[in-house]
Amino acid sequence: MKFLKTKVTGINIAYIGGGSRGWAWGLMSDLASEGALCGTVRLYDIDTQAAKNNEIIGNNYTFAQGAKSKWKYKAVDSLEEALSDANFVVISILPGTFDEMEIDVHTPEKYGIYQSVGDTVGPGGINRALRAIPMFIEIAKAIKAYAPKAWVINYTNPMTVCTRTLYEVFPDIKAFGCCHEVFGAQEALAKLISITKNIKEPKRTDIKVNVKGINHFTWLDKAEYNGEDLLPLFLEFAEMLHKTGFVVKHKAENSFKSAFRVCFDLSLRYGMIAAAGDRHLAEFCPPWYLHSPEQVEKWGFHLTSVAQRKKRLQQRLDKQKELLLMDGKNYILRRTGEDGVKQMKALLGLEDLFTNVNIPNKGQISSLPLGAVVETNAYFTHNSVIPQIAGAIPCEVNSLIYRHVVNQETTLKAVIKKNKQLALCAFANDPLVTTNIDDTRELFEEMLEKTKHYLNWLP
Amino acid sequence: MKFLKTKVTGINIAYIGGGSRGWAWGLMSDLASEGALCGTVRLYDIDTQAAKNNEIIGNNYTFAQGAKSKWKYKAVDSLEEALSDANFVVISILPGTFDEMEIDVHTPEKYGIYQSVGDTVGPGGINRALRAIPMFIEIAKAIKAYAPKAWVINYTNPMTVCTRTLYEVFPDIKAFGCCHEVFGAQEALAKLISITKNIKEPKRTDIKVNVKGINHFTWLDKAEYNGEDLLPLFLEFAEMLHKTGFVVKHKAENSFKSAFRVCFDLSLRYGMIAAAGDRHLAEFCPPWYLHSPEQVEKWGFHLTSVAQRKKRLQQRLDKQKELLLMDGKNYILRRTGEDGVKQMKALLGLEDLFTNVNIPNKGQISSLPLGAVVETNAYFTHNSVIPQIAGAIPCEVNSLIYRHVVNQETTLKAVIKKNKQLALCAFANDPLVTTNIDDTRELFEEMLEKTKHYLNWLP
Amino acid sequence: MKFLKTKVTGINIAYIGGGSRGWAWGLMSDLASEGALCGTVRLYDIDTQAAKNNEIIGNNYTFAQGAKSKWKYKAVDSLEEALSDANFVVISILPGTFDEMEIDVHTPEKYGIYQSVGDTVGPGGINRALRAIPMFIEIAKAIKAYAPKAWVINYTNPMTVCTRTLYEVFPDIKAFGCCHEVFGAQEALAKLISITKNIKEPKRTDIKVNVKGINHFTWLDKAEYNGEDLLPLFLEFAEMLHKTGFVVKHKAENSFKSAFRVCFDLSLRYGMIAAAGDRHLAEFCPPWYLHSPEQVEKWGFHLTSVAQRKKRLQQRLDKQKELLLMDGKNYILRRTGEDGVKQMKALLGLEDLFTNVNIPNKGQISSLPLGAVVETNAYFTHNSVIPQIAGAIPCEVNSLIYRHVVNQETTLKAVIKKNKQLALCAFANDPLVTTNIDDTRELFEEMLEKTKHYLNWLP
Amino acid sequence: MKFLKTKVTGINIAYIGGGSRGWAWGLMSDLASEGALCGTVRLYDIDTQAAKNNEIIGNNYTFAQGAKSKWKYKAVDSLEEALSDANFVVISILPGTFDEMEIDVHTPEKYGIYQSVGDTVGPGGINRALRAIPMFIEIAKAIKAYAPKAWVINYTNPMTVCTRTLYEVFPDIKAFGCCHEVFGAQEALAKLISITKNIKEPKRTDIKVNVKGINHFTWLDKAEYNGEDLLPLFLEFAEMLHKTGFVVKHKAENSFKSAFRVCFDLSLRYGMIAAAGDRHLAEFCPPWYLHSPEQVEKWGFHLTSVAQRKKRLQQRLDKQKELLLMDGKNYILRRTGEDGVKQMKALLGLEDLFTNVNIPNKGQISSLPLGAVVETNAYFTHNSVIPQIAGAIPCEVNSLIYRHVVNQETTLKAVIKKNKQLALCAFANDPLVTTNIDDTRELFEEMLEKTKHYLNWLP
Repeated sequence: MKFLKTKVTGINIAYIGGGSRGWAWGLMSDLASEGALCGTVRLYDIDTQAAKNNEIIGNNYTFAQGAKSKWKYKAVDSLEEALSDANFVVISILPGTFDEMEIDVHTPEKYGIYQSVGDTVGPGGINRALRAIPMFIEIAKAIKAYAPKAWVINYTNPMTVCTRTLYEVFPDIKAFGCCHEVFGAQEALAKLISITKNIKEPKRTDIKVNVKGINHFTWLDKAEYNGEDLLPLFLEFAEMLHKTGFVVKHKAENSFKSAFRVCFDLSLRYGMIAAAGDRHLAEFCPPWYLHSPEQVEKWGFHLTSVAQRKKRLQQRLDKQKELLLMDGKNYILRRTGEDGVKQMKALLGLEDLFTNVNIPNKGQISSLPLGAVVETNAYFTHNSVIPQIAGAIPCEVNSLIYRHVVNQETTLKAVIKKNKQLALCAFANDPLVTTNIDDTRELFEEMLEKTKHYLNWLP
Repeated sequence: MKFLKTKVTGINIAYIGGGSRGWAWGLMSDLASEGALCGTVRLYDIDTQAAKNNEIIGNNYTFAQGAKSKWKYKAVDSLEEALSDANFVVISILPGTFDEMEIDVHTPEKYGIYQSVGDTVGPGGINRALRAIPMFIEIAKAIKAYAPKAWVINYTNPMTVCTRTLYEVFPDIKAFGCCHEVFGAQEALAKLISITKNIKEPKRTDIKVNVKGINHFTWLDKAEYNGEDLLPLFLEFAEMLHKTGFVVKHKAENSFKSAFRVCFDLSLRYGMIAAAGDRHLAEFCPPWYLHSPEQVEKWGFHLTSVAQRKKRLQQRLDKQKELLLMDGKNYILRRTGEDGVKQMKALLGLEDLFTNVNIPNKGQISSLPLGAVVETNAYFTHNSVIPQIAGAIPCEVNSLIYRHVVNQETTLKAVIKKNKQLALCAFANDPLVTTNIDDTRELFEEMLEKTKHYLNWLP
Repeated sequence: MKFLKTKVTGINIAYIGGGSRGWAWGLMSDLASEGALCGTVRLYDIDTQAAKNNEIIGNNYTFAQGAKSKWKYKAVDSLEEALSDANFVVISILPGTFDEMEIDVHTPEKYGIYQSVGDTVGPGGINRALRAIPMFIEIAKAIKAYAPKAWVINYTNPMTVCTRTLYEVFPDIKAFGCCHEVFGAQEALAKLISITKNIKEPKRTDIKVNVKGINHFTWLDKAEYNGEDLLPLFLEFAEMLHKTGFVVKHKAENSFKSAFRVCFDLSLRYGMIAAAGDRHLAEFCPPWYLHSPEQVEKWGFHLTSVAQRKKRLQQRLDKQKELLLMDGKNYILRRTGEDGVKQMKALLGLEDLFTNVNIPNKGQISSLPLGAVVETNAYFTHNSVIPQIAGAIPCEVNSLIYRHVVNQETTLKAVIKKNKQLALCAFANDPLVTTNIDDTRELFEEMLEKTKHYLNWLP
Repeated sequence: MKFLKTKVTGINIAYIGGGSRGWAWGLMSDLASEGALCGTVRLYDIDTQAAKNNEIIGNNYTFAQGAKSKWKYKAVDSLEEALSDANFVVISILPGTFDEMEIDVHTPEKYGIYQSVGDTVGPGGINRALRAIPMFIEIAKAIKAYAPKAWVINYTNPMTVCTRTLYEVFPDIKAFGCCHEVFGAQEALAKLISITKNIKEPKRTDIKVNVKGINHFTWLDKAEYNGEDLLPLFLEFAEMLHKTGFVVKHKAENSFKSAFRVCFDLSLRYGMIAAAGDRHLAEFCPPWYLHSPEQVEKWGFHLTSVAQRKKRLQQRLDKQKELLLMDGKNYILRRTGEDGVKQMKALLGLEDLFTNVNIPNKGQISSLPLGAVVETNAYFTHNSVIPQIAGAIPCEVNSLIYRHVVNQETTLKAVIKKNKQLALCAFANDPLVTTNIDDTRELFEEMLEKTKHYLNWLP
């Protein structure tokens, strides 16, 4: 790397999961839009062809109208090749196939367990973790060997478990997990202000929040705009709308939309803002909102089927075909709203950043175990991500969170210690798993049977 | 009090709930059997007649064959009268009526929630706590006013919440909660030894155990007899019998019996001994064992109906009539096996004692919050109950326990802060409550409606 | 207050110690130089005339060339008048007279104890604390009564004890202590870079540091400039110069200068940068550097006599006379380099700030007791001072710091509990007090005799 | 081993330092006096002849009048031979020679630093630790290899550092350190009772105390006899006698005697009983009592010169000669009053014991770092040493203790990390070292020069 006054050149980024159709293109667009950075992105993917396609697409982005920097994209064949000399590592992989995700999401339905997402917690999230952990063990070992000083940005779900695995294997890793879920809450608050104050919607970054929790189950006990405390305003609003819901028009397909009813219900009960989408929030609770498909509809959100995901994949494959054929000059740059590139700039010393992030607990949340990966604000400055003291979480909310922290730690321990019984402990302790213990064990075995090829120590 | 070399005379005991039919008689028998102590027991009860009856019965015990000490019993009319100059306070009250207990135990059944006891956790335990806490607030205030130096022994359930309330109101109180549930586990281990080793059953106190957990949900990570580690032996035994169960013949009625299947299942899954009766253990878990009445039977234990309790009460009323008419000389002394009198002796400096007890956590269980009432071993010596370091609880078990610790703290906080919403938070977080949130709220309201006369701040 | 887009008007500042000759004028100059803020400063001082003089001087500053905002200054007669409706409270008082400071600094010399400053720790610092604590108790009570929501900035020494007293009396106070001592270390690092790299000296705020410790005894375990790790560079420099010292030319009088030899010696021994002036650092240690006046000179720093301070006061009185006579148009604005005004701007939501500050420990330094006032970085944003996780301090340095933390807590406790013995415990535990216990007690009594009129509970 | 009902036979004890003249004979006498245990003691010593002599003496003890058990003594040539199959390991070695101890005790006198013992803390204690740590590293490795399940009793000073080293090298070791210093305090309290109450002196074990601190610097915040609180009684007594002292006639030579004046002075200042001999207590403090030899005499205790120790050694060598020549039948059994044999009995399951002990902090003292070796009460039962919660130490005393905890940890870290600078940090932070830093460094180097052959990594 070369540090110029307001610019850094010669940056090496290793992109693990570099064949990604979606995230990768977003990052390409964000990088091309940023004039202060340039360098090379090495794309590694177990789907070699996908990486090669992205090499072409990435290099095309350089010619997009309005591109402010030149990046070189290169598909590589091994983690070693991707990681050597990397300054940053981006991890955005799919742990397993969509067919396997079908097991995560839909097998439990046979036992009356419904999941709105199925990739974080719940039986599906735990099963997905059992696939992802071995992959992240391998990645962490490679980073330790080839890029021990690199900053590692993880976008893969289950975010907490994956990031935690990196630290378990390589405690000195400089890794953090990123997620835009809290941004959504900030945007909703911005909209709320524009509605209630009849003013132009503020930028989400002008909504100052104190974030505490774990990924996809984050809470805000402080939110302010321009000196105004938004917490009472929000709770008043929630009180008014918690029965009917509040529908924000956005680009998301129907099944990804929600009416904030889960958010309102939780926020009113616990006196803090539940800051994630309803589809995620509902999965962290007992079956308060996910008791049956009818219940889900009544609460104004939806079960996302894997069939829908497969359909979306097909759309992205079509998009890929289009991009491969298109001349770079016709590419359109669209900022994703993600913080990834801003974080890189801050870590390179160009511009400090204050944002939320997933990192091991060093005391930022005093009511959760040290070492567990938690989500709070942090200050990004040159070569540092400094966690902010977010404070303790009131015990009635802490209990809801701690349970998942333990399940995630136990799932990781199960894989590290090759102990199936521990995985069952985590599974049976998930709040959505309310079956009797015989059925619980049966469901666990059924899902594990189709997952065990990732866990070579299982018989 | 007067300290002689091996004897203490002039002891004042205040018995709150002194009209008790059962516990009180057991204590009378234990006191009469102990030659090293004598003094006066003042019986206070909101049922004045019951206290008066026990005055007669207590004084009769003095004449029982083999009685080694003379105690004077006296029914009194107020807490002040009972407590003034008391050296010990015994609390064994029934928080509410059996009709009210019917609400605790049977109302939830309409929502498919089954409880085997209903007095500790679960919707019933929480509702019972809402009745008991105001009573214990009053008792704690009276102790602070009239007997601040007395040692306070609580036998009332919900043990943890009641003991915790005493400390909340009067932090300098010298109180502890006692329960024989762990003794049962020691007895089972003694039996196990006698069976597997073909030797005479050892005394339960020869089974050395390390106790950790909360009342009725205690765990043993160490058990030894005569230098032998019983943990592997027990797990082997559990492995062998977890499907069929292990039936110990004892005096308990059918509905109070169990086949240890819940204990075995938990112990095998978590690698430690679950040291309480199955009826209690099952209530602390998600509906693994209490999913339906059929499920309960299949697991070899029973739902104790309040009708059965009422029947037992009738038997005790008959017994009372009999005792009132009987000449003291015909009374029979039967040691209860409880530690109460031994604890008094130890606190008076006569004979040290090492036993399990419920007191606030000062670090004896490092994985649970400081200040929460936990159950571990303690060393009883002159005027001291010194908690032993029991160590951390593995996180997968700690999570099961912590959830109840939080619910109990939240229930207490709800009453202290007069905040109904907090009580709902505890209620909805109970593992047996797996209904959707609307039903949960409905059940909560229905139970509260019949409880609210204890909570005068509720509308 | 009125929030405009980039400006806040109608701010009320209560200045306690508003007769200050020096600090007050600096603040006046900084406020006048800042265009984004305006309002009223109410000056309260037990020296009424001094406050009245500053009212005139303050109002003159408004006419200074280049003044960007209009502030109104007003001398008031009571804390109540100063504090009512205040948005900010500035505390910069002298706890006692210079004659009393002579006791602090020079009485111990009779016992062979030399202090280079005598206002923070050492026998002098403790004696000064015994005078200051009662004053801060009174101030804290007044803030609680009249301005409980105001932000309170304390500049008074002993900084730690004074700030800690505010929180002891009014736990919900929004107070922090400010000190420029760390800025000096940043400036020295900036100079080091300019020398070794032969480049223009960078701004001190471009030197990113991780601050940990207590006021006047702060340490840096991380220092960076433009991506370069300055710690090895500094240690190399220290290694080179620790025998000869490094003299930075600056405006300070001789007796306030130092040659960084103490800083170098400590930094080399402990492997971190000791980030305060030598005169302060030396006082926190055993008499390593203050064993005798000769020793002090040898180490390249000086004992500041109170006579010198009195002389400086005279100069400031002359300056005051001059200012009172001068037309405001001839006043010259000089930025002090202090962060006070920037902090106000950040707390008003105008511009976030990342700087070091003295606040109670909520976990930002995990190796020091919770609640003790520590110095670390914090993030200043709208209505919030968010402490950064600074991490643990290596035990060999932590021990040096913890000792003073305890002495400061004990001194405060002595005053709160009106317990002279506790004050002696703190005094005798100070590292500079190496006399035998009889002499120690004698010195303590001699100093206390002249201080006890501040402590009306002493006989 | 073979467990009979009330007896254990076939016990193997490895005695490291088995050539000891004194401790070894005491243990032999205690073992012979105890009927419930028998087996073999393997004596290992770097002084082979000394071990062989003790083999003869030990075997003679078997024939002493009143001997209740037969033990076989055997000198062995290696740690491996001593440790293989050992059930207990006793460590009582002299770390270095008396000539080396002369360096510890007398070199600092040239710099005006006086030590009354010189084997625990102070420059002498730290230098002794630098010799002892490498020995204990070797011993710990051997125990890990050959007797990982054995219980290890350490009697060697510096007790804390030596015991801590064992845990550093082999964290699963079952080791504890034993010292009779607290027994002395109990005996003094017993005497106090007999004087003030005019009754027969009670047994020391009837004085119930709560012990907290580190070895040789232990404090009692609770002491009781027969229900009476001895703390106020003791403080009253101290108040009365702190100027004149209190001389207990005992067998100790003059230079080992003290008048309790240091104990009284500390106890009165801190409100707790300082529970160790004055010679030890004084060394843990700043030079309050050790400022000069005159000061020491004035305080009624003495500097023990190494010349005196050498003289005592000669006496023991004479005694050895005598014992070797004497017929076993003429040996006299004298109980030492040490708890060693009782501890073995408890650990073998024969008889529980409640006593004070040095083990790593698991929370028994909440104000000291976890893992540091602290001294508190513990409950000895079958195969377990269970620490008691002793509670926090008031901060003004905690500070005095913490300083040594850190110095001891730092000294250990210096040896483990082969970092001379760290050893200097510990040395310079000792409260008796009040020299200027140049002299401090000079003294450190002078002592290290004569110690460095134990630290082969030093140049």
